[in-house]
Amino acid sequence: MNSENLQKQIAFIKEIDKLKYITRKTRLFNSDRHENDAEHSWHLAMMILVLAEHSNESIDILKVLKMILIHDIVEIDAGDTFLFDTKNNHTNTEEELKAAKRIFGILPKDQANDLIAIWEEFEAFETPEAKFARTVDHLEPILQNDSNEGGTWAEFEVPFETAIEKKSVMNEGSTDLWSYSKGLMKDNRERGVFKN
Amino acid sequence: MNSENLQKQIAFIKEIDKLKYITRKTRLFNSDRHENDAEHSWHLAMMILVLAEHSNESIDILKVLKMILIHDIVEIDAGDTFLFDTKNNHTNTEEELKAAKRIFGILPKDQANDLIAIWEEFEAFETPEAKFARTVDHLEPILQNDSNEGGTWAEFEVPFETAIEKKSVMNEGSTDLWSYSKGLMKDNRERGVFKN
Repeated sequence: MNSENLQKQIAFIKEIDKLKYITRKTRLFNSDRHENDAEHSWHLAMMILVLAEHSNESIDILKVLKMILIHDIVEIDAGDTFLFDTKNNHTNTEEELKAAKRIFGILPKDQANDLIAIWEEFEAFETPEAKFARTVDHLEPILQNDSNEGGTWAEFEVPFETAIEKKSVMNEGSTDLWSYSKGLMKDNRERGVFKN
Repeated sequence: MNSENLQKQIAFIKEIDKLKYITRKTRLFNSDRHENDAEHSWHLAMMILVLAEHSNESIDILKVLKMILIHDIVEIDAGDTFLFDTKNNHTNTEEELKAAKRIFGILPKDQANDLIAIWEEFEAFETPEAKFARTVDHLEPILQNDSNEGGTWAEFEVPFETAIEKKSVMNEGSTDLWSYSKGLMKDNRERGVFKN
């Protein structure tokens, strides 16, 4: 047994428990209860397993799963970012990079470098895997909002055009899922969910 | 786009949101808050990513991840089973099989059959992937109990010998992780956590 590796891995496993306390703006389906980042990450991993056929390009499922499982871990230090936040942009900030280095850096060096590289690939939004992972990350809150009488769209008075603009990157990962999502958003517009 | 498939996949994605409401007996690290099955499944998936080197046998990581991501979904219908429950055994009950067929059966047929087969492989505890997945499923509550002054060992007055007996199957998945776990349980015995 490599005891030194195991000690570092156990320390990392304990540290990432904190993801269960990071609360998102979105709520569970048909519910008032806010979702946390750990639940969200599990749900996205399941979505990747069942929706992979809708990716525009051929993807390495194991890599997409790794991306999605780790994609929010930086929020343990950097906090949740909200797509419709009008003050802060959801970008790959210096703070998030610092968080990635600290948290993944708890692991043995090779593993730390591997996970930091996968997180950076996700953030860069260039590879088919990163595009599909991000698309699914965008899809979950659309489904949740649709089940919650508009959810964050209504709560934060988001105009329809803003939602479409912010979500349209989904088309790069999956034209199927983007087409389906646009349909849902149009239904919600008809129900008066969006700000005029 | 295969719209029929997508409709079924979306229905499944909504259905499994219920896993976030299934509460486990164990609590988060250094915490009074009970863990739910979705958080638990995410944490185990992360543990598989970082602990794979400790598997006794060579494993297909993607298959182990699929197993762990879906392993508790049957509890949406069948409820949580607790290792130290003195009334009910944690076995692959008829009720769980019925739940697997209903819930995975929401998916397109090929996907449903694939996930039911993976869940059955996990439950059968015969392949290297099933043994490693189960070992990690046993490890998380040991780490949690160790951080919570004995956690469920103290709360449910579990004797040391019972804990060792119930957990010893871990040795089939990973002698490393079993050896480490035994050490933690012995430390807890010295602290008077177990029932005499």
